[in-house]
Amino acid sequence: MRDVAILGVGMTKFGELWDRSFREIGIEAGFQALVDAKLSSGDLGALYLGNMASGSLIAQEHIAPLILDYSGLGPHHIAAVRVEGGGASGALALHEGWLAVASGAHDFVVVGGAEKLTDVPDVEASRITGGTADHEWEAVFGATLPGLWAMIARRHMHDFGTTREAFAQVAVQMHENGSKNPNAHYRNKITLEAVTGATPVAEPLGMLDCAPFSDGAAAVVLGPMERARKFTDTPIRLAASQVACDAMALHHRREITTVDSTVVAAKRAFAQARRAPADVQLVEVNDAYTIAGLVALEDLGFVEKGKSGPAFLNGEFARGARLSMNTSGGLKSQGQPFGAVGVAQAVEIVRQLRGEAKERQVSGATLGLAHNLGGTGGTSVVHLLERTN
Amino acid sequence: MRDVAILGVGMTKFGELWDRSFREIGIEAGFQALVDAKLSSGDLGALYLGNMASGSLIAQEHIAPLILDYSGLGPHHIAAVRVEGGGASGALALHEGWLAVASGAHDFVVVGGAEKLTDVPDVEASRITGGTADHEWEAVFGATLPGLWAMIARRHMHDFGTTREAFAQVAVQMHENGSKNPNAHYRNKITLEAVTGATPVAEPLGMLDCAPFSDGAAAVVLGPMERARKFTDTPIRLAASQVACDAMALHHRREITTVDSTVVAAKRAFAQARRAPADVQLVEVNDAYTIAGLVALEDLGFVEKGKSGPAFLNGEFARGARLSMNTSGGLKSQGQPFGAVGVAQAVEIVRQLRGEAKERQVSGATLGLAHNLGGTGGTSVVHLLERTN
Repeated sequence: MRDVAILGVGMTKFGELWDRSFREIGIEAGFQALVDAKLSSGDLGALYLGNMASGSLIAQEHIAPLILDYSGLGPHHIAAVRVEGGGASGALALHEGWLAVASGAHDFVVVGGAEKLTDVPDVEASRITGGTADHEWEAVFGATLPGLWAMIARRHMHDFGTTREAFAQVAVQMHENGSKNPNAHYRNKITLEAVTGATPVAEPLGMLDCAPFSDGAAAVVLGPMERARKFTDTPIRLAASQVACDAMALHHRREITTVDSTVVAAKRAFAQARRAPADVQLVEVNDAYTIAGLVALEDLGFVEKGKSGPAFLNGEFARGARLSMNTSGGLKSQGQPFGAVGVAQAVEIVRQLRGEAKERQVSGATLGLAHNLGGTGGTSVVHLLERTN
Repeated sequence: MRDVAILGVGMTKFGELWDRSFREIGIEAGFQALVDAKLSSGDLGALYLGNMASGSLIAQEHIAPLILDYSGLGPHHIAAVRVEGGGASGALALHEGWLAVASGAHDFVVVGGAEKLTDVPDVEASRITGGTADHEWEAVFGATLPGLWAMIARRHMHDFGTTREAFAQVAVQMHENGSKNPNAHYRNKITLEAVTGATPVAEPLGMLDCAPFSDGAAAVVLGPMERARKFTDTPIRLAASQVACDAMALHHRREITTVDSTVVAAKRAFAQARRAPADVQLVEVNDAYTIAGLVALEDLGFVEKGKSGPAFLNGEFARGARLSMNTSGGLKSQGQPFGAVGVAQAVEIVRQLRGEAKERQVSGATLGLAHNLGGTGGTSVVHLLERTN
């Protein structure tokens, strides 16, 4: 298989974009990425689009050719494919785009992720996103995503002595990071007291432990590494792209404080890239719930199982520390437009590796990892992105 | 890229499967295909699942790992990816599965397609499937899929003198074919008078011009051609796999009596396989509406534009004639579980090429074409399947 590079990136602001439609934000992100890659639309062979639930959210299925159409790319009749895996939809689209270029089927593809969540009431959005857990065995009995993650949090506290403050601190750090990101949904800083004192959602998780429902879109352009220098001085190599799955329902899992799909996807990714967790300076993980961020750091191999709480409180994952976690602000602060998240993670890492992250720039990073999760871990996708010069 | 073979096939009965759940039918088809391929689940590297609208239909997104989970494949943590492109979802999943094997990323993958349409009332299913056309520019103004195809039919009649009897005869022939298919939703034969005299849906199309809403699932197992002989004496080679897209809304098209996405996908597929339409003996086309079947025969290059009506009435596309069209009974008679259709088309062609189609067997065929359509042609997928011995 050919080496694949990311040649261009783009994204919209994340937030409550009342005045913009799904197709508008999809097109904006895609065009930004094309312009950034210095490619014209005629060079493209395919579009992959990550999206969780456009059918339920905006009554529109079949959205990949829709975005193609409204981008003016219709006349080229290129392939347009939507990929879905709950909150992991964006990274799954990146995986399929990587396969399309790595295989030689296409030279240049654009990978987008987009979601418009605020066109339905919050309670409806909650019901729809709950459809990424096991509907028949979890959702119908009243288990919601925050409720399921709250069970994981309780068990993590019980088994490892993790404190309420440890995962509350994740939210504080994410808002600190997001305050420096002009595309973030939330740019306000928050205090530990605000998080621990917030209205409970599913105890121990409160309002400020949960990522918001956001609208937004992100896109990257992929091409073969051997031709990348024609388009950019700083091609970012997709050093690994791996997907792993697990039982949808928590009660079917081996244990609930470890997300096995993440463990396996990460192991496969490090093997593919012939690298180890210690080589990584930047990571974007799923922190849809603060506890999820801690669990991910453990499952990806960045800290021993059960030790993420003290390590986080110790500042080991702050921006510029040994591993900078979610410099974008993560899902918590940058926002959570489900299908866009996995692509936006890649956008952030590319900007950091290129040195284009401005106020939130981390110095000297050469290897970043993006971790995108569907449901409570039915799907995990891990990408490794590498600057080679 | 490696040559890819279909090693095993499976499918459920199509119809109103009130007593069976989405996960049950998905698993049945997958297991049949695995057993047929003589593979064990531990050999699999990935699952690709085509599905149009599980979120709206059964309140469940993220269905690929769900099927994996309930198949007992969870512990292997293989990749599971859902692919969606309206009615073309199944063939898009086959395309992505082909890429996964052709690229060398995986050796063996299972590709499934499944849809459960009858869990919601028909009027709701109509609304949901209408989401495969352009929602903002077609659906909200009252344009339904039958209405859009009726406009195409009217224009085809106007431009080419196509008669009402010509597309009515498509329905008659499909029910004749389906009467010999034990998996078909409808196995009753119908008369030309029954079709032309049926309750109008969107004139000139009546009830019997429209394929039903069905439940059902289908699956195929793919592997590298060079290893195929270990598993089967009659591996079927995927000689081409191509996707092309076009504007979603009819009013954005170059013209409406030609589906350009089909024209382009077919040209690319014949080029990929170094074959021509005259080499094909079997075709499974989208006949969700009878007129769609005629238009597809033209766009795929099997008959000159505008001449499909007389040719069809002349029996040129009957079972065993110069080109056997939809020996399965097509969407009209075998049924239309959206995401399953594209995979079921491949299942039918494999069974025909292997000589396992029993009562409906066509003799001596070596090359078949499967044509799967999303919406009114926003997406077209064309596969060529070849028996090599």
